[in-house]
Amino acid sequence: MSQPLRLGIAGLGTVGGGLLRLIETHATRLSETAGRPIAVAGVSARTRAKARATKLEGMSWFDDPVALAASPSIDVFVELIGGGDGTAKAAVEAALAAGKAVVTANKALLARHGAELARLAERYGTTLNFEAAVAGGIPVIKTLREALAGNRIRRVYGILNGTCNYILTKMQDEHRAFADVLKEAQAKGYAEADPTFDIGGFDTAHKLALLTSLAFGTRPAFDQIDVEGIEGITQADIEAAEDLGYRIKLLGVALKTESGIEQRVHPAMVPQHSAIAEVSGVTNCVAIDGDSVGNLLLVGPGAGASPTASAVMSDILDIARGGAPYPFCVPADRLQPYTRATLGRHQGAYYVRLAVYDRPGAMAAIAGRMGERHVSLESIVQRRPRGAQIGINARGQPGEPTPVILITHETTEEAIRAALDAIHRDGNVSEKPQMVRIEPL
Amino acid sequence: MSQPLRLGIAGLGTVGGGLLRLIETHATRLSETAGRPIAVAGVSARTRAKARATKLEGMSWFDDPVALAASPSIDVFVELIGGGDGTAKAAVEAALAAGKAVVTANKALLARHGAELARLAERYGTTLNFEAAVAGGIPVIKTLREALAGNRIRRVYGILNGTCNYILTKMQDEHRAFADVLKEAQAKGYAEADPTFDIGGFDTAHKLALLTSLAFGTRPAFDQIDVEGIEGITQADIEAAEDLGYRIKLLGVALKTESGIEQRVHPAMVPQHSAIAEVSGVTNCVAIDGDSVGNLLLVGPGAGASPTASAVMSDILDIARGGAPYPFCVPADRLQPYTRATLGRHQGAYYVRLAVYDRPGAMAAIAGRMGERHVSLESIVQRRPRGAQIGINARGQPGEPTPVILITHETTEEAIRAALDAIHRDGNVSEKPQMVRIEPL
Repeated sequence: MSQPLRLGIAGLGTVGGGLLRLIETHATRLSETAGRPIAVAGVSARTRAKARATKLEGMSWFDDPVALAASPSIDVFVELIGGGDGTAKAAVEAALAAGKAVVTANKALLARHGAELARLAERYGTTLNFEAAVAGGIPVIKTLREALAGNRIRRVYGILNGTCNYILTKMQDEHRAFADVLKEAQAKGYAEADPTFDIGGFDTAHKLALLTSLAFGTRPAFDQIDVEGIEGITQADIEAAEDLGYRIKLLGVALKTESGIEQRVHPAMVPQHSAIAEVSGVTNCVAIDGDSVGNLLLVGPGAGASPTASAVMSDILDIARGGAPYPFCVPADRLQPYTRATLGRHQGAYYVRLAVYDRPGAMAAIAGRMGERHVSLESIVQRRPRGAQIGINARGQPGEPTPVILITHETTEEAIRAALDAIHRDGNVSEKPQMVRIEPL
Repeated sequence: MSQPLRLGIAGLGTVGGGLLRLIETHATRLSETAGRPIAVAGVSARTRAKARATKLEGMSWFDDPVALAASPSIDVFVELIGGGDGTAKAAVEAALAAGKAVVTANKALLARHGAELARLAERYGTTLNFEAAVAGGIPVIKTLREALAGNRIRRVYGILNGTCNYILTKMQDEHRAFADVLKEAQAKGYAEADPTFDIGGFDTAHKLALLTSLAFGTRPAFDQIDVEGIEGITQADIEAAEDLGYRIKLLGVALKTESGIEQRVHPAMVPQHSAIAEVSGVTNCVAIDGDSVGNLLLVGPGAGASPTASAVMSDILDIARGGAPYPFCVPADRLQPYTRATLGRHQGAYYVRLAVYDRPGAMAAIAGRMGERHVSLESIVQRRPRGAQIGINARGQPGEPTPVILITHETTEEAIRAALDAIHRDGNVSEKPQMVRIEPL
């Protein structure tokens, strides 16, 4: 058996700890698969003293992760520090410049500086792997980069944030309000104290930027994504979706259109009887439509120490065997500039929820506004919210708003937005219209 | 750019034709990804004269695939002939012995001779790839061999045969009988004139043998699989499953138990509200439970020219980049002998359908037989078949059998079989009891 592959691991938090445990418990199988032993030569973390589940004996300690990255004692630098700039970036650059292979789980770093780091890796003849950066344990990077390399990808989309999917699932299953479920998720540690990064859709957007680049051979363009979070989704929307045969999921979607690439993160309706609708709780999924393969769906854990460590180990084993593909499928210099499609030209069907004042002519005016923009309707439902008592039904009280749900036929984002703005201005609705895109599967 | 990777393709049927089209249409992207052009240097097929969609210009013709396999004009031999022995085997052996990398879609060949061919590949320092042999376009071989190489796999299972899933889905959606749907599937070309290989579960078993080997590091053991087909599934079972919150799918399941490995192919109940229950029509899926990654589910097309060509191309690109893993994850000599678990010791819950004569003491006798074998029941439903008219209800006519559905708590296969044998012998039922295993997800 050949020389061991020597790892330098920077960052010993949840994922780093999971990785050390994996290496310790699976040593024999790993060396058989890799054709050589996998050894942890050096580690770096914020505090050396912290109690850890795994012994650090036999591993050199580095206070400075950048020094570890460039150390002649390692072959592979595993970056688990996190953060889109700063130390993580400096350390990865140092490792690549020293010809070390790099494995990272850092989506923010790659979404911002991916093309530049890929170019660095190629210049120094080494490897940059990041399976753990998107969707945790789901092998979607490998799938796009290797398994589907013979495909022209048409669309990639998925449920990429466990916190949001947990909240939406709870709202659906337990008929509870968004704020209530969010509070519970925070108490359980599924959501951060400041949940904006997750529920605002930004975490999903980071991951989507990497999927888009791999799928379409373009430079990662995180700042070109249309992002909406799930804060505006109410129990009324969840219930209406269910009645209409849909479920609401926060999706990241990247799509090739004639005018460029659509990259969007937003709550979307998906058909109730579909595998993606059954992806519940903190589970993630990624769907890929390729011209040869057709439709592929990968479902699995999107976070957590062990699943993420599994993904990191996959990258390490690939390096041990050699023959790594280009970080973004094609040489970094061949990555195309990103052309953003105008979201206004997005074509699709829409769910709309209106709180309509119950007065003569209101519905006619609303229908008229839709007609002006050539938005045709597939269905209209006036619905009483679940639990509302007969007798105090809003419809019986003139002047009180009634929930009205519309499903449109395919139209453009521009048209539906203009129609809804006009409806809002007309004053027949008591609040800003709710609009959710329907994503065809 | 380096020298082209020269392919020799044997077999120009559906998949071979799909592969030639893929290479023709995606040439630029393929050579970018591979770092070198992908060229078809030679081909072989049964009849040279046959009209083909793709031009064979610039490719040498070989009447004998074995000669193509060993020809100095190729680097990679792509075997799309099929068949577990004969020409396909001879050609693959010739290619490996000549140091050529081999890509094959031949599940029968690998299920029977996989370990031996892997050893040959290692002896001659070359590669044996077979992504297309299991579940068509779903990259499950790569996932087990590479992405999950850091995992100890506990179970792998899936819907591996599109014909069976198409039939079961149609029976479910359209309330039609097995024979009726099978006839339609044959007319549409989804099922063969002799459908035994598919509906009897043997196609699933071939694929399962390969998944088992990759998951557990054992020699492929196709002849050690317990195989049941879907011929015995009736509309009554489909309806009862639906009422009880399940769907019936033909699964291939491989599971590590204390006494060895369970490999079984049989119709199974899966929970209605699960992603796997929503895998419908000819779509396939594979679920993998790993100790690090947790539960992963891959869903996609299990057959067809383009999806299979996509998988074959993935194997070719891996070879172009070099650094291929061992065919079965670990060196062939390290593959463990297969230890078969006794199916009698299988533990699980069961669905049972009985046609019970409506006479005093019948149900008591049945319950007694279950009790003798310590089989406890979760639920008992006497149900009238859908569409049966009130007034001629079987329950009203003494002596006429009534369908009775039982769901057991967890028990052993031995116990339930013994109880059902006794129930059958007692003569309170008009036909052999139906039994379907419930697979926990």
